[in-house]
Amino acid sequence: MNNDKITKRDVDFAKWYTDICKVADLVDYSSMKGSMIIRPYGYAIWENMVSVLDKKFKELGHMNVQMPMFIPESLLQVEKNHVNGFVPEVAWVTHGGENELEERICVRPTSEVLFCDHFKKIISSYRDLPILYNQWCTIVRWEKTTRPFLRSREILWQEGHTMHETEEEAREETLRMLKVYEDFQREYLAMPVLVGKKTDKEKFAGAEETYTIEAMMYNGVALQNATSHYFGQGFAKAFDIKYLDKNNELKTPYQTSWGCTTRMIGGLIMTHSDDLGLVLPPMIAPYKISIIPIKLEDDILDVVNELKKKLDKENITYIVDDSNKSAGYKFANAEVKGYPIRIEIGKKDLQDKKVTLVRRDTLEKMQIDINDCINMIKKLLIDIQNNLYNRALKRRESLTYNLYKYDELKSLLTADGGFAYVNWCGNVECENKIKDDFGLKSRCIPLDDNKVDGPCICCNKKATTKIYFGKQY
Amino acid sequence: MNNDKITKRDVDFAKWYTDICKVADLVDYSSMKGSMIIRPYGYAIWENMVSVLDKKFKELGHMNVQMPMFIPESLLQVEKNHVNGFVPEVAWVTHGGENELEERICVRPTSEVLFCDHFKKIISSYRDLPILYNQWCTIVRWEKTTRPFLRSREILWQEGHTMHETEEEAREETLRMLKVYEDFQREYLAMPVLVGKKTDKEKFAGAEETYTIEAMMYNGVALQNATSHYFGQGFAKAFDIKYLDKNNELKTPYQTSWGCTTRMIGGLIMTHSDDLGLVLPPMIAPYKISIIPIKLEDDILDVVNELKKKLDKENITYIVDDSNKSAGYKFANAEVKGYPIRIEIGKKDLQDKKVTLVRRDTLEKMQIDINDCINMIKKLLIDIQNNLYNRALKRRESLTYNLYKYDELKSLLTADGGFAYVNWCGNVECENKIKDDFGLKSRCIPLDDNKVDGPCICCNKKATTKIYFGKQY
Repeated sequence: MNNDKITKRDVDFAKWYTDICKVADLVDYSSMKGSMIIRPYGYAIWENMVSVLDKKFKELGHMNVQMPMFIPESLLQVEKNHVNGFVPEVAWVTHGGENELEERICVRPTSEVLFCDHFKKIISSYRDLPILYNQWCTIVRWEKTTRPFLRSREILWQEGHTMHETEEEAREETLRMLKVYEDFQREYLAMPVLVGKKTDKEKFAGAEETYTIEAMMYNGVALQNATSHYFGQGFAKAFDIKYLDKNNELKTPYQTSWGCTTRMIGGLIMTHSDDLGLVLPPMIAPYKISIIPIKLEDDILDVVNELKKKLDKENITYIVDDSNKSAGYKFANAEVKGYPIRIEIGKKDLQDKKVTLVRRDTLEKMQIDINDCINMIKKLLIDIQNNLYNRALKRRESLTYNLYKYDELKSLLTADGGFAYVNWCGNVECENKIKDDFGLKSRCIPLDDNKVDGPCICCNKKATTKIYFGKQY
Repeated sequence: MNNDKITKRDVDFAKWYTDICKVADLVDYSSMKGSMIIRPYGYAIWENMVSVLDKKFKELGHMNVQMPMFIPESLLQVEKNHVNGFVPEVAWVTHGGENELEERICVRPTSEVLFCDHFKKIISSYRDLPILYNQWCTIVRWEKTTRPFLRSREILWQEGHTMHETEEEAREETLRMLKVYEDFQREYLAMPVLVGKKTDKEKFAGAEETYTIEAMMYNGVALQNATSHYFGQGFAKAFDIKYLDKNNELKTPYQTSWGCTTRMIGGLIMTHSDDLGLVLPPMIAPYKISIIPIKLEDDILDVVNELKKKLDKENITYIVDDSNKSAGYKFANAEVKGYPIRIEIGKKDLQDKKVTLVRRDTLEKMQIDINDCINMIKKLLIDIQNNLYNRALKRRESLTYNLYKYDELKSLLTADGGFAYVNWCGNVECENKIKDDFGLKSRCIPLDDNKVDGPCICCNKKATTKIYFGKQY
């Protein structure tokens, strides 16, 4: 059984996670250290994510483009904060064929400078604005320790880059795209994410403000699952990008960028999965249904075919396991793969014109009339999606603590971890002290319901905001 | 007018081509020499190509995966023919962050070795076969001279990699995928391509046989527009990939790979476009219709909105030019962009309840009753697609010469070039001599209707096959 190869979640969460990635055939390791192979089942999840998000981006007027994957060193250095943030972790190409390059080039760790270099050429009038671009590509960051989907030398992602006439428009865009990520993660990934602003210490290199989607994993650790940056005019000024406004005056435009990555697959796994394997929310699962004929006999296979036709008609994706493995093996495999519903079709069931449905989230079994099967499946898919969301929300709430005393932060240093919701003065000294003393990093400053109810948890001086702290991936 | 910026096709074909790429907003150059930026309109053409091909690949059972973009030098060297073919043109990464790497790594020029490295791990039984994988990604080849879409240091492409139990199955797959490319290019790109086998001299490094799709550009030059390779067991043996067959005996599987790139966009342009700009076949055009209100007045805009609704209903893509530019400018721009049909809506037309349709391929104008508009559009889109195909076919036929005497090959060295269809003995010496004497390379050995009708055009000895020669991009 493949289930046996999965370490128990409560015994070793990190090992449990990598076991699931491997045993559910999501990834494989390669001879290229630090990079991963995304296998068909893992890639199908990513394709579903891409398809939903790409449609949403386009509905909002964004267009896809493709920039070079290489950045000459001199170009990377145009914006100083930016280059300092990235240089320690870029891969450098020094030779093309047998010749040493005159200037070394890096493999893009992100593409702000490439977009700005292009924007300078194509923006001249207010008529050219807004520019709403997006790019699906891979980026490289030379990480020392890597984990599938979470931290890899090569990352599949999407990066939006936009330019606007006014600060107001650019700020609106920043928050609009943050909302796209939030909605997507809530509705499709069943992840009850927190939304907020990063502190100055944690913001993106070169950004004025970074907004973030923070999810809590089952073990109480935080995962930053998407970000949206307001750049103001920093890059535009560094690249000397200007446009003539309606009054024929030269102005500098305002900029945003926003991105999400295959890391969301890691988030999915660590939010919903269990000791038996992957658990996928129906809205993002490549196959919503797994059909398992208990024996490969004609009357059973007839029902399988009948079911397939009905599911096709309803556009419900499925996979049939008609291998000659034992029923027990097939059930276990369906659990490992996290198909939301399993349909078992056996002799006994058929005598009563029934089939057995099993929910992956609760493992609840039910015998259903064959003719009611499709209606029950439609209902269950909604139920499972909601249940996964609510279960994760409850878990997050149970692991989020309103703390007021500095020493209480210690309580987060248990196996379950969790978030501390605290009052903060806004000074980086306190933020640093909390990190040094407890290993907790600031997650985000909530945008709503941000009511200070006490002094700074660290320095006891006047607090200016509420903020979440937690351990992070 | 943007038209004015396009060099005449008959004056300087190469300049005409790059002018169109630039003026139609398909690409831009970047600070990264040798790489191009694919702009939204160019990328939308690629997205259409991807969407059609990806669907077809999946219907045939292929699954998408993602391999690392880096290949350690030692891995690249496992198959000797392969590495010798690619080493002169790879980009080498030597530093990660501030540290020199222990082993340098190249950015993938193609991914055979990465797939084989993975296949070795996941193939153990005949039950694991066939493996039908595909990857959409970018590759890097450090070309010295580059041209948009045709030859670039970074290329967007797709690469299929499959493994099979038998030689027969692998050979079938090789030809099946060749047919997919052929059908796609004929049906969607309206390109009358030749299909055939490459000579040993021209085949892919490491392949036993390479099959090719060869298109003739308007100027008579050949473009290799997709390839499909039969590898036999070469890579499998080099990587020691084995499987247990049904009789429990260890066997070596048979392999294929096949790919096509954004080069097809270059092919599209050089096949159909003209002095006024791009001409896109309706089946691949991002916008099939351009709607141009001659004046931005209410009664005209009402008709625009009415038309938009009807086109939406029919799933016909369109773009509306409601800028305040002059009508003449808008017409010229629609021609530059190659929208298959332009609808002009003016005051005069409307008095008679008519609109004017203009075909991009022939520039023919017609006044149509508003109510007949959609039906006429549907008919015209088919007509245009067919006309472009037939026009290109006629051009190719008129520039293809059945030659029997060596000196006649000289006749191809004119501005129009073209293909020579000749008898060949099969020896590389003759192939090399033709290249040295005339700069003509072998294009392909046709798979059908390959009837020798004379001695080898070069050595006059017994010919074993017909073959096409031509200048190439």
